[in-house]
Amino acid sequence: MSSEPNGTKIDVEKLFAEEKADWKGYVEWEQYPEKKEIAHTILETKKFPYPPEFQMAPLPKTNPVLIGHRWKAYHEALGLGHIVDHSWDIVQKEKHDIIHLLDFPYNGETRRYQLLENKLTNNKYHFVRNHGGIPDIKEEAFELEIGGLVNKPAKISLKDLKDPAQFLQVEVTVTLQCSGTRRIEQIMQYPGDGDELINAPWGIGTAVYRGVPLKKVLKRACGGILPNCEHLEFIGAETYFKKNNVFNYAVSVPWRKVRQNEEVILAWEMNGEPLPKSHGAPLRVIVTGYIGARSCKWVYKINALAEPSMGPVQSQEYLYYTPQIGKQNTKYSSGFSIQQMPVSSAIIFPEDKEVIIHDGKITLKGWAYSGGGNWVERVEVSPDGGSVWYAVAQEDMTEKHYHAWRLWKIDVPVDAEGWLEFCVRTWDSSNNTEPTFVRSAWNWDLHVTSSAHRIKLYSVNKSKPATAKRLKELDEKGVGFEPLTRPLEFALEDVDEYLANVRKYPREPRS
Amino acid sequence: MSSEPNGTKIDVEKLFAEEKADWKGYVEWEQYPEKKEIAHTILETKKFPYPPEFQMAPLPKTNPVLIGHRWKAYHEALGLGHIVDHSWDIVQKEKHDIIHLLDFPYNGETRRYQLLENKLTNNKYHFVRNHGGIPDIKEEAFELEIGGLVNKPAKISLKDLKDPAQFLQVEVTVTLQCSGTRRIEQIMQYPGDGDELINAPWGIGTAVYRGVPLKKVLKRACGGILPNCEHLEFIGAETYFKKNNVFNYAVSVPWRKVRQNEEVILAWEMNGEPLPKSHGAPLRVIVTGYIGARSCKWVYKINALAEPSMGPVQSQEYLYYTPQIGKQNTKYSSGFSIQQMPVSSAIIFPEDKEVIIHDGKITLKGWAYSGGGNWVERVEVSPDGGSVWYAVAQEDMTEKHYHAWRLWKIDVPVDAEGWLEFCVRTWDSSNNTEPTFVRSAWNWDLHVTSSAHRIKLYSVNKSKPATAKRLKELDEKGVGFEPLTRPLEFALEDVDEYLANVRKYPREPRS
Repeated sequence: MSSEPNGTKIDVEKLFAEEKADWKGYVEWEQYPEKKEIAHTILETKKFPYPPEFQMAPLPKTNPVLIGHRWKAYHEALGLGHIVDHSWDIVQKEKHDIIHLLDFPYNGETRRYQLLENKLTNNKYHFVRNHGGIPDIKEEAFELEIGGLVNKPAKISLKDLKDPAQFLQVEVTVTLQCSGTRRIEQIMQYPGDGDELINAPWGIGTAVYRGVPLKKVLKRACGGILPNCEHLEFIGAETYFKKNNVFNYAVSVPWRKVRQNEEVILAWEMNGEPLPKSHGAPLRVIVTGYIGARSCKWVYKINALAEPSMGPVQSQEYLYYTPQIGKQNTKYSSGFSIQQMPVSSAIIFPEDKEVIIHDGKITLKGWAYSGGGNWVERVEVSPDGGSVWYAVAQEDMTEKHYHAWRLWKIDVPVDAEGWLEFCVRTWDSSNNTEPTFVRSAWNWDLHVTSSAHRIKLYSVNKSKPATAKRLKELDEKGVGFEPLTRPLEFALEDVDEYLANVRKYPREPRS
Repeated sequence: MSSEPNGTKIDVEKLFAEEKADWKGYVEWEQYPEKKEIAHTILETKKFPYPPEFQMAPLPKTNPVLIGHRWKAYHEALGLGHIVDHSWDIVQKEKHDIIHLLDFPYNGETRRYQLLENKLTNNKYHFVRNHGGIPDIKEEAFELEIGGLVNKPAKISLKDLKDPAQFLQVEVTVTLQCSGTRRIEQIMQYPGDGDELINAPWGIGTAVYRGVPLKKVLKRACGGILPNCEHLEFIGAETYFKKNNVFNYAVSVPWRKVRQNEEVILAWEMNGEPLPKSHGAPLRVIVTGYIGARSCKWVYKINALAEPSMGPVQSQEYLYYTPQIGKQNTKYSSGFSIQQMPVSSAIIFPEDKEVIIHDGKITLKGWAYSGGGNWVERVEVSPDGGSVWYAVAQEDMTEKHYHAWRLWKIDVPVDAEGWLEFCVRTWDSSNNTEPTFVRSAWNWDLHVTSSAHRIKLYSVNKSKPATAKRLKELDEKGVGFEPLTRPLEFALEDVDEYLANVRKYPREPRS
């Protein structure tokens, strides 16, 4: 493939070739400003498809739900179409049974029943939110480079990093959460920026990661940081596009966070298994209690910086805006860069708009989480939209962790029939709880949907005689109660009974 | 066509033939119990398609929106397929430019702009909610029969009825409203019974009807009613189906209502033109301030009764249930038969989820109505979901009528940007106003959606400097503001400005 900006014929395959042997899918951009400039020139000559409209229109019922035409076209424009193909091959192997929200860059979400199977999410089912293709890097060929404001720059092979004689290893139980988790709730009521985003109702999962604290690596390999270092920047091997510019993925976290040994680790193991490629093998960062975007996958370079990363993922995305900011006036500097995640929870079972036939109690199950080292203290469920609240018993929650969710279940007393609105709220160890309504926390970029999660259920209480009678009637006729909206085909009352009732209490007054 | 219940071959075309010459599409059922029984037996042998699921799934974007497969199949099963065809021909002639919600029985709704053109709705655009095929009856052949609890039964030709020397004529300005008006709001949040119902967001319209008061006709033609008459039943010429039984359309209203001369009239003229066939020509009932269903079309028979009509439209439908009643326990006698309509209103412009670019005021337009002889006194609009309310000026409303709506418009002061929730409420002459939320008035049969109508608008206030700047920027680049969700393709802030801003107020505290 060739491209001809400004009349110069360019062999893009050669110019934008992979950087290193056995680092499949990795193209280096950050070291080569001229190469980035040429890529920009090429991208400017092309028209790319708009991101799919998934907010104003119903979502397709397909799997993958959406197709990443735009990012595929970006890659193809630079002769990188092979990345698209091998990424999908990896997904098929590692993640064949989850919901594929977007095929490329790959975004997949755990199905409901998989999410609640266990406190730790099976690696096969753990959500994935990627920003580019999936590199395929041979472990033996891999090395990590550390530079910037450190006493001495270093390169470390994975073999050395994994050597417990050189670096202390830790295991941490960590819930990772995309800040798009539960975004569908914002989208359905108040659409916002549609930039490459896809709704992520359940973009959350938990695993035990094994690795080494970054703090220890900086100390031992680089002799520590320089006094003016404030942020540590992580560069990932995937290719990232933003407004016709090309980058390697780059984000940063404060040194203050890195100082807590087990809160920022370089990890190669997930739930006792080697880290899957789709999760960042051979090496990724895990930042506890932060937005998932900071837990950089395929990290091959770390820079000690005086200020936060200027990478667009850090400086131009994952920004939290006040509601007066929107398409009409957004600037990057008017957003608050999302790092620690707030307290949040969700009802996973039952689903919204289900019919529940019960005898006075309805069982609800879900997750609850808080970021920034706050643990989940209490979970409460309301059967009436937020007036009456019932607390989940401690024995009905999984154990506390500093950096992980608690799964919970509760039998909620329910007398009323018809449509009822259930919601959940969580109190964390700082006594933070959640905003009440979606609109209480709406923001243009549709991040951190942390309001009390709400579902409507149609309650059928068979402990009530009239209901028990109707259910029996349906049973005798071999007719199901559902679909709810399907009319009953038989008379609801015989004429004599009807007349007796309406004559006893006539519609119009007698005088 | 023939049918063979119980092994007996029946010629349905002959058995269920039209009753009278020049009364096309009219089959008499109520006089012939045996014929009804045979029809029932035939219908019981067949399987009919379920009504379309329009509540749990998105509505198709087609016009007609829904196809009446079920009612077409009912007609075909009795050899009445010709009624389906000629009904649609009449619709094409009389109503070609409205929204066809259901093709058969025909249900059509006025488009938004047609609704607000004039205080009186153009006959071509007035909504139609039919329950069967449209009869095509020659005026000269028509006669009205009156029986039951009257001093003397009578038959009156249309010519006599229209003779001002015999019967005093009146003109009344009347808003008719299907009790399904604005049902879409209930459906979208809380689905209910799906029996032949289609959402009817704007099933309302206003016309001047000319005719004769029923009270005068009863007096002059029949010598008045007997003392035990409490209800007047109207029988319409169309064929109506309910749970495999067949009927002529039948409803009733109290004698107490009929006593008000101009509140129950027999009408043949609509807005100075002959009544269209789809609206009941040659003769229909108009009942002011009541649910549209009582204004019986193609009325050919009136019965004076001691009790309300046992017709299923009266006794089994248009019932208003308390929220604890639903599919699990409904009986006909547990509903309140809907006659007078409550106070209600709607915002017609702008539409839900529109983007509004303005300079501090947003114009809203709509209708407001109350039934039962209450007139609309005051209309109020809230730009914040129901806390602050602004009243519409009297000069911005059409004139008061006892039995008709008022159209209104208002410029609402709006400073805020982003998603705002507007709602409208109306106060009638009894100081009734509307429930606040859809769920405040939800009912299983989804009738009288009278809660404060709500829309979300995305406000872009160009009197704000940052917004004016962005709009200018878009203009210079030749890019539209909409679609709202489409990402901006240019940088939202240059690097120097960004750095100056984030260095002035850094993300993390200094200490």
